[in-house]
Amino acid sequence: MLPEEYEREYQSCRALIEARLQHYFCDGSGGRLAEAMRYSLLAGGKRIRPVMVLAFCRAAGGDIEKALPAACAVEMLHTYSLIHDDLPCMDNDALRRGKPTNHVVYGECMATLSGDALQAEAFNTLLQSELPDSAVVTMARTLAGAAGLGGICLGQALDMDGEGKALTLREITAVHNLKTASMLVASARMGVAAAGGSEAQLEAARRYALALGLAFQIRDDILDCTGKTDVLGKPAGSDAANNKTTFVTLYGVAECERLIREKTAEANSALRGHFANTDFLEALSINLEERKY
Amino acid sequence: MLPEEYEREYQSCRALIEARLQHYFCDGSGGRLAEAMRYSLLAGGKRIRPVMVLAFCRAAGGDIEKALPAACAVEMLHTYSLIHDDLPCMDNDALRRGKPTNHVVYGECMATLSGDALQAEAFNTLLQSELPDSAVVTMARTLAGAAGLGGICLGQALDMDGEGKALTLREITAVHNLKTASMLVASARMGVAAAGGSEAQLEAARRYALALGLAFQIRDDILDCTGKTDVLGKPAGSDAANNKTTFVTLYGVAECERLIREKTAEANSALRGHFANTDFLEALSINLEERKY
Repeated sequence: MLPEEYEREYQSCRALIEARLQHYFCDGSGGRLAEAMRYSLLAGGKRIRPVMVLAFCRAAGGDIEKALPAACAVEMLHTYSLIHDDLPCMDNDALRRGKPTNHVVYGECMATLSGDALQAEAFNTLLQSELPDSAVVTMARTLAGAAGLGGICLGQALDMDGEGKALTLREITAVHNLKTASMLVASARMGVAAAGGSEAQLEAARRYALALGLAFQIRDDILDCTGKTDVLGKPAGSDAANNKTTFVTLYGVAECERLIREKTAEANSALRGHFANTDFLEALSINLEERKY
Repeated sequence: MLPEEYEREYQSCRALIEARLQHYFCDGSGGRLAEAMRYSLLAGGKRIRPVMVLAFCRAAGGDIEKALPAACAVEMLHTYSLIHDDLPCMDNDALRRGKPTNHVVYGECMATLSGDALQAEAFNTLLQSELPDSAVVTMARTLAGAAGLGGICLGQALDMDGEGKALTLREITAVHNLKTASMLVASARMGVAAAGGSEAQLEAARRYALALGLAFQIRDDILDCTGKTDVLGKPAGSDAANNKTTFVTLYGVAECERLIREKTAEANSALRGHFANTDFLEALSINLEERKY
């Protein structure tokens, strides 16, 4: 796929998502809480997870309009996790997506509540999907599985617990699989489920997103070392400041670059033979591999 | 229904719930996060919400065994909301159900995460129900609706915002409907949905639980004034300490007692004609009206 074709398709998915996200929590009934939720939800970001929902839905032959509530649900859930991760009692970050973090603007109480409400509204939004009940139940189970003790919450707990400790490769891989890959895997599988895809497609989606998720996290670790705050939209160097073991501290940058290429190839090979057209998904993993922020 | 019959049925429902709750998050995979979740989830409490799920399921002719995951889900969601409400950035309470609050034992970071994970696991648990997909979707929508911006999160946000301000009856009723009644209404309706009940039964459940929820909250306000910390299991007098407008500050105790009786009668009359047997549910509202803690 040509770079401009990829870019056009990515931006067209992203525009659909942004337009739909604008519609939530804007009827005036939620007061300052709704305002705080929208502040973080509409702060931009790459929208990788919802794009992945739409891309897998399309690859599996589904109607991406019908997958939009699921795509928005994943972004709501991801946004809630960022708001809570940034709280003073967690990573205590003041900058996110180039803007002051939620608690800096709205205070800790409202930031905690806006994260809580975004999690609930993620499920609420997903459950309003105009799809067969069986697809809705599969998608909701997938999201809930990645959101709880088998996903991002345990990942964040292990991550916080690991600060200042020397972790093994096995341990940091486990943290990242829970904290990052689990929600990417859920996004990919929800897209397939929205299209009524097969078990084989669900499994291919899982393998693709798991490999891509690891490559994504290794790139994050490299960028935290080598990137600049104004390009990243969040503070560079925070891993070193928090004494975190990362792929870079374990392997160095050159070996990490090799690992990213290996995982990206693994992701793309998982797709082949299971979908009519995988051009966009293959370009997506390569673009994420090469990203600068 | 005789008091001893009511007590036997309540305790038999409660025992089923306690036994099922014991099974969650105990496989050792969740480390200290799972321990923190279980600490609050298994701290006792009256279990009114899950009992209401089972009672409405039975009243609507369903199999209460199949409603147990939904009942446990409601209790997980309620427990998460208590953990977050007690955080230093919210009500900053050190005692709950007669035990130190979650953040006092596990720290703020883990308490925030254990609440987050309990919310996700509430949906996860509910979505594992062995019931038709249509019932599962209805129950999950009901729970999500009460959990987010149309329920407890907005209720808590308005409640925090109202501290130290003079609120009108209309305002405190709105807060309590969101903060307390919404989850009781959801519990009642989820029980009916688990049984595959009719729209008329869902509506009767809503009206019962809304009236009961208001009576419940007025009793809470009276107990906060007149109760003792060791009986309540949480600090008495916290409303006055936080300068909160309550039903008691607006009306005085005697008028509140009259209101409770009125709301309880309204709750019970909403049930009649819609279920084969409402003895237990009617006894439940009367017992909650007369409770001492």
